[in-house]
Amino acid sequence: MQFHMNGFHDGDPLVQVPASGRQGPQGPIPPELDVLIIGSGPAGLTLAAQLSAFANIQTRIVERKPAPMLRGQADGVSCRSMEMFKAFGFADRVLKEGYWVNETTFWGPNPDNQDEIARIGRVQDVADDLSEMPHLILNQARIHDMYLDYMRNSASKLEVDYGLELVNLKVDPDGGEYPVTVTLERLGFVHDRKHVTVKVKYVIGCDGARSPVRNAIGRELNGDRQGQAWGVMDILADTDFPDFRYKSVIKSANQGNILLIPREGGYVTRIYVELDKISERGASRNIGLERLVDVANNILNPYTLDVKDVGWWSVYEVGHSVADKFDDADGDDIPHVFIAGDACHTHSAKAGQGMNVSMGDTFNLGWKLISVLNGKCRPELLKSYSGERKAVAQALIDYDHKWARVMSAKTTDDEISGSQEPAFKTHFIAGGKFTAGLSVQYPASELVGEATWQHLAKGEDLGMRLHSAPVVRLADGKLVHLNDSILADTRWHLFAFAPAGDNGKGDSAMAKLCDWLQNNPQSPVVKYTPKGADPDAVLSVYGVFQQHHHALELTDMPALLKPKKGPYSIIDYEKIFCPDLKNGNDIFDMRGIDRQQGCMILVRPDQYIAHVLPLAEVEQLSAFFEGFMLAR
Amino acid sequence: MQFHMNGFHDGDPLVQVPASGRQGPQGPIPPELDVLIIGSGPAGLTLAAQLSAFANIQTRIVERKPAPMLRGQADGVSCRSMEMFKAFGFADRVLKEGYWVNETTFWGPNPDNQDEIARIGRVQDVADDLSEMPHLILNQARIHDMYLDYMRNSASKLEVDYGLELVNLKVDPDGGEYPVTVTLERLGFVHDRKHVTVKVKYVIGCDGARSPVRNAIGRELNGDRQGQAWGVMDILADTDFPDFRYKSVIKSANQGNILLIPREGGYVTRIYVELDKISERGASRNIGLERLVDVANNILNPYTLDVKDVGWWSVYEVGHSVADKFDDADGDDIPHVFIAGDACHTHSAKAGQGMNVSMGDTFNLGWKLISVLNGKCRPELLKSYSGERKAVAQALIDYDHKWARVMSAKTTDDEISGSQEPAFKTHFIAGGKFTAGLSVQYPASELVGEATWQHLAKGEDLGMRLHSAPVVRLADGKLVHLNDSILADTRWHLFAFAPAGDNGKGDSAMAKLCDWLQNNPQSPVVKYTPKGADPDAVLSVYGVFQQHHHALELTDMPALLKPKKGPYSIIDYEKIFCPDLKNGNDIFDMRGIDRQQGCMILVRPDQYIAHVLPLAEVEQLSAFFEGFMLAR
Repeated sequence: MQFHMNGFHDGDPLVQVPASGRQGPQGPIPPELDVLIIGSGPAGLTLAAQLSAFANIQTRIVERKPAPMLRGQADGVSCRSMEMFKAFGFADRVLKEGYWVNETTFWGPNPDNQDEIARIGRVQDVADDLSEMPHLILNQARIHDMYLDYMRNSASKLEVDYGLELVNLKVDPDGGEYPVTVTLERLGFVHDRKHVTVKVKYVIGCDGARSPVRNAIGRELNGDRQGQAWGVMDILADTDFPDFRYKSVIKSANQGNILLIPREGGYVTRIYVELDKISERGASRNIGLERLVDVANNILNPYTLDVKDVGWWSVYEVGHSVADKFDDADGDDIPHVFIAGDACHTHSAKAGQGMNVSMGDTFNLGWKLISVLNGKCRPELLKSYSGERKAVAQALIDYDHKWARVMSAKTTDDEISGSQEPAFKTHFIAGGKFTAGLSVQYPASELVGEATWQHLAKGEDLGMRLHSAPVVRLADGKLVHLNDSILADTRWHLFAFAPAGDNGKGDSAMAKLCDWLQNNPQSPVVKYTPKGADPDAVLSVYGVFQQHHHALELTDMPALLKPKKGPYSIIDYEKIFCPDLKNGNDIFDMRGIDRQQGCMILVRPDQYIAHVLPLAEVEQLSAFFEGFMLAR
Repeated sequence: MQFHMNGFHDGDPLVQVPASGRQGPQGPIPPELDVLIIGSGPAGLTLAAQLSAFANIQTRIVERKPAPMLRGQADGVSCRSMEMFKAFGFADRVLKEGYWVNETTFWGPNPDNQDEIARIGRVQDVADDLSEMPHLILNQARIHDMYLDYMRNSASKLEVDYGLELVNLKVDPDGGEYPVTVTLERLGFVHDRKHVTVKVKYVIGCDGARSPVRNAIGRELNGDRQGQAWGVMDILADTDFPDFRYKSVIKSANQGNILLIPREGGYVTRIYVELDKISERGASRNIGLERLVDVANNILNPYTLDVKDVGWWSVYEVGHSVADKFDDADGDDIPHVFIAGDACHTHSAKAGQGMNVSMGDTFNLGWKLISVLNGKCRPELLKSYSGERKAVAQALIDYDHKWARVMSAKTTDDEISGSQEPAFKTHFIAGGKFTAGLSVQYPASELVGEATWQHLAKGEDLGMRLHSAPVVRLADGKLVHLNDSILADTRWHLFAFAPAGDNGKGDSAMAKLCDWLQNNPQSPVVKYTPKGADPDAVLSVYGVFQQHHHALELTDMPALLKPKKGPYSIIDYEKIFCPDLKNGNDIFDMRGIDRQQGCMILVRPDQYIAHVLPLAEVEQLSAFFEGFMLAR
């Protein structure tokens, strides 16, 4: 992590100096806002956290509940979400505190006695080199806490306003700068301060499956609203089930199914019990905790589960549905109201996706919103959110449907005898990339280039997230990950991979590219960087070379890769990388980078790959940015 | 990390529920204390942090300065200190925030032009597998902050009392339970609340090189009080020196020497300038910042250093000295006053040892003090502190002397021409284990067994710190480190390494050992675990097997390795390990464990190896504990 650039920062470097006017308490909601977020779940907080770094944008986030959540709800954190948490600087805390899903075990009927279960297989949960991050389990409340800390530490010191519920939202297309009028009701107040009315530029409804914001803009969830019934409980238990600390998928012959998810801290386990098999559809709501424990014991036979304490439990039915559009705009209109998270998509918890896809929604929206509000990008950029994220939601619903069919199918004799791999195991393995959150691929658009030069970086797919790899930093020999440089700060990133033999000197391809980027009037660095800002404030450029780091000299490197920054004009030393040859991890091999030609990989602020280009195709690079940027 | 055992713990698991009476502010210092720590530097805080976990012990820590330190002083964090920080749970924060010393570079006179310097070598700073932790650089103030957070999060909510200076300390051998009387003066108060007098069981002087506590007990520093003069500055600078982000040892031909230490955050660098060469001895105190910068520029020629901002700087002379004894006791007396850190040893900053050895002092003392105060161990145990740590301090002084001679020797022509490796490089490499803090070896004593069976664990030296290795946890397949289990909680640890083929079942050696430990009246587990406490409260036993974790079943494991704990009597799943075969890291090979016989490795609460024993030598184990434990 980088700090001290602007002079010595005493104390915790994660705690930013408050922006002007943000030293004291946040105060009442002002009559006009740039951004109003409704709902403080994972989607709302992911967005609020991004905005909190920009104190010049007037943002508020309101929550119907009276206080932060403490327990329950989601707990799956996908590899992709962990990669995103790196950009917020708290992935390390989740790594430390969460349960690591290392292997998943599969249990089916014991062939010798089908009233009992037996382990029928196990798989490594995340394939090698799928991501630099593991799959984790941590209570959603703690993820909230980390976002709340991030906001508390930010320059704006943004806080959630609890106990405020949306009662009215109206968009006036002719409403000028603040076209959305929102009325909030303060819970527990009966006097004249009960209602707050505020005019807003952009409203984002992160307000759950029954989303009042969605209803207010007339969008609808489409799909089957009735779904499977599940019971879920977070328990402390004494048990002889040997895989109590492995994620386990358990299909009994006749007693139903369990999804067992060990939880953080070494003792708690979450058990999902499929209830369709044991009750009439719709009757599940009357099922109590005792019945859940009984069913779990029946399924786990011959093992027993002596539940000692229950932290949280719930019985619910959930369908599969997606909103028809994720914003309020029709045709060529610019959207001013967005919906995200459960407000856009509902599905089961089986694939552990809910929290992750919700955070992905607003990580897609956040940089766009900030870039438009700060005059960096055209407002039309905001139209890309609904299309990019609706496709992701639809893929999730389709996957969830498939999982449901596989889990509810009766185990065949061949599966029980072991002569055939059980379908739920093969399906689980096949879905590995999906459940890790790594199958999302945004299609070609103004924000994702055509795949003309995809062959120059075969392992870095256009529209997918940058697949990081270990690299050694030239300036200090530190082994880092390529994506460590990407923070949640709306900057674009250009990774220039050098051709074989290129050492950055003289008239090498890298030197030429860097010279063009630094000096040519058509360069996005020149065109879009505000006067007086750091040279990497809009587009941060990195060089990745093929040589061992002892074979290169910092002195020889192009000036653009040693940018002088901040009030003291001092060098940022973290832009030049070499392959990790000592450990045999050559990023050029790992990611299929063309060794003869090298290439440029342009990465969006949300870590998705926007373009792969030959090093000399600087005009294409320039043209790409013209599609959505505003010149300074 | 483990939590939730006693029921669901909402919020940050690092934040402990306050003990009874510790919910509010700490309040004034009571008239009687179990422990009084004087000084809140690294030694004082390492001790205070350990004590803070035990709210039943009345502890206070006072500091002469009016507020916590913000900048300056030490910054080197050795591998050994990082291993210790794991026990306090904040190593991850130092890893994230600190500068990683990956390689050290060496600069000498350029053979073509001796007025200029040239790079003459570089070495990996920490040899492979020396420790699981890197060597880091982080401002001492931030280390303080992490200890202060640990204390704030602890059950006792212990805080430092700032602005209190020791004015009198008297030990009365016939003083009963509280033999030490201490008078403190409150700075800034002129009225009757100016003085505080308190009666104390144990006082620890962590009060620096001029230690009033040391003076009060009549101990003296022996050695040369006059030493080399150094200038030091933490700077933000614009420079073309290419190794500005590498730790660099720079010996110019005639201008003097620099030790350049990059610092956390990517921009700040600390520069030590040796001043003996440029000024009359003793005149160094008149040297100002400008002169330091000039000298640095002269040494760095042909490179230039344009200093933009200075966070902290100092010019100092420091000698080499060790106190004659580190406590107040003579003969067979039980000590009641101890000194630690700079109060016991002064030396140069060159080897980056000061903060590390100081923390090592009180990490040695802490568990002894707590174990005696809690009635677990005989008070005689406290006598071991002075002997164990004085030898460490003496080794440091000797090493520092050697370094000083090597650095001040004129570079030879052979070294300049490259026909001979420069002495300062070979000395640096030879001292790698020492500077990493890993050469400390406590001699045989009541706390360290005889080396009779050292051949059963050739890579785990008696009296040295447990050399950790990666292992896979049987219960959840997680790749962890063997020493992750060791917290700063005064528990002892017994690692039982299984012989080849032992699977924990039936009458295997592991099963027999565990049965004896769990049930035999001579077992330290049976003898010393208080009634009602968890079975691992005093001695935590682990099994390390040779098989892949898929080849073993939790069900087959001895009950002692699946201890039931806490109010709900639920299993602790983190006691059984297998080798990390997937990555080729077999702990049995890595640490030279005898595969045929296996062995027991007994580890002290401070991570040092107390004994290596054959699995069947349970009587030796029993006898060893009798030397210092008190039966319940």
